[in-house]
Amino acid sequence: MSKTVVYEVQVMFGDCDPAGIVFFPNFSKWMDASSLNFFVQCGVPPWRELVKTRGIIGTPLLEINTKFIRPATYGETIQVHTSVQEWREKVIVHKHVVMRGDTVLCEGTEVRAFCIKHPEDPDRIKAIPVPEDIKALCS
Amino acid sequence: MSKTVVYEVQVMFGDCDPAGIVFFPNFSKWMDASSLNFFVQCGVPPWRELVKTRGIIGTPLLEINTKFIRPATYGETIQVHTSVQEWREKVIVHKHVVMRGDTVLCEGTEVRAFCIKHPEDPDRIKAIPVPEDIKALCS
Amino acid sequence: MSKTVVYEVQVMFGDCDPAGIVFFPNFSKWMDASSLNFFVQCGVPPWRELVKTRGIIGTPLLEINTKFIRPATYGETIQVHTSVQEWREKVIVHKHVVMRGDTVLCEGTEVRAFCIKHPEDPDRIKAIPVPEDIKALCS
Amino acid sequence: MSKTVVYEVQVMFGDCDPAGIVFFPNFSKWMDASSLNFFVQCGVPPWRELVKTRGIIGTPLLEINTKFIRPATYGETIQVHTSVQEWREKVIVHKHVVMRGDTVLCEGTEVRAFCIKHPEDPDRIKAIPVPEDIKALCS
Repeated sequence: MSKTVVYEVQVMFGDCDPAGIVFFPNFSKWMDASSLNFFVQCGVPPWRELVKTRGIIGTPLLEINTKFIRPATYGETIQVHTSVQEWREKVIVHKHVVMRGDTVLCEGTEVRAFCIKHPEDPDRIKAIPVPEDIKALCS
Repeated sequence: MSKTVVYEVQVMFGDCDPAGIVFFPNFSKWMDASSLNFFVQCGVPPWRELVKTRGIIGTPLLEINTKFIRPATYGETIQVHTSVQEWREKVIVHKHVVMRGDTVLCEGTEVRAFCIKHPEDPDRIKAIPVPEDIKALCS
Repeated sequence: MSKTVVYEVQVMFGDCDPAGIVFFPNFSKWMDASSLNFFVQCGVPPWRELVKTRGIIGTPLLEINTKFIRPATYGETIQVHTSVQEWREKVIVHKHVVMRGDTVLCEGTEVRAFCIKHPEDPDRIKAIPVPEDIKALCS
Repeated sequence: MSKTVVYEVQVMFGDCDPAGIVFFPNFSKWMDASSLNFFVQCGVPPWRELVKTRGIIGTPLLEINTKFIRPATYGETIQVHTSVQEWREKVIVHKHVVMRGDTVLCEGTEVRAFCIKHPEDPDRIKAIPVPEDIKALCS
């Protein structure tokens, strides 16, 4: 079974919309932060280091899917529970469940590719097979 | 076939992340703005008016799905092409294709429910069947 | 001397700009969150309660002044140290010093007015003298 | 007298807060976008080009001052009127007046330094005297 890493977020007034609840793209922002935190907590070196040592720039997003179940509002503390749902050849699928204590607020997946700077064109990037050592750290 | 309404966005420096490209949740923000603009352009009265006359508070999101194909950056002008992909009993599915001229940048769907203030508890909301007049305006 | 209340923030990837550092308006967002947290920590009831009991909607901003001294980036934890710099008849001036441990990152003031719903027009607001009980709690 | 360049913004739902009005740090974001647009409209090459040809990375902010006069909300189109208020040896002071047609919503200044990558440490930056050719283009 996969590791689950929890990332805590304090909801601010400025995260909320005229309906008084979290403006939904902020959930995506927090899942993204929790995805990065997942790698850090698993012991993966920072991308800004890996880009220098191995050319790996990070894990750009290919796709997101999110279901919104209950709203949250400012003043609340919520938790993003992040795990790996699936590994494919060049892709990691992160699963995120956003909770306020025991209550599920929203849940979703992120499909991310491992990428390096393109060897022939530094302005482009190129997907690579999931590095085995990173996979081992995260599993 | 459904109407398509185009909403134009100028990408700002502050919309971009350390990779120098649009931080992906902003695409969700722009699709949300384009969804609202779609209703306005179709002649649906503003929610702040409908809440007073018919109790309809708007169309909260149930689910989003987005595929990211190419990045965009600041200084660029992009277009969100919005249409209705599907009507269900209490739900509208909006389809958004974000383009920079002829180039597709990302595309996604939003599932939205039509909601009123709950008749027994003003702090809660309640999904209602899609109002026929709104469906007619948007089709 | 005034109380100082500290509000901690984890800087996320999505808070940073193409220069790789915090996009500066986020410092304003965090000062705003810290201002609200200051009132809460001092025992002032939430505005959503005060609007019902006394018509006080909150403390809209009249003016901000901010000096940016050093940058911050994602993965860092920073602290907003918030105090009252000055009380005027209808106004509170909040002072915020944003630090990363012992290092000052930026500092600024917010001038805020205490406001109620306008008695003759619910769509407008009206500044009132600083409520003495709130002043006492915050001093 | 200085040039004035106008930058137009469509206010989105996601720019607004639980009070139903623009969350104030967004005005700073729009002033920042208008500041960059000012340089572009004056014919200054993009920073991503100037960093390659002359090492100039851009104009980081040293200080902002903003007065909020009237609120704005989503669905509105507003204009940022940007000009140069003052040149100092290493600094440009931008003046921004945000208007909705003839109505002033907020106004503020930004103090920005012209910076290059530090010759001895690529991770640091260094202020330089205002380049005369850029000053000429903007005046």
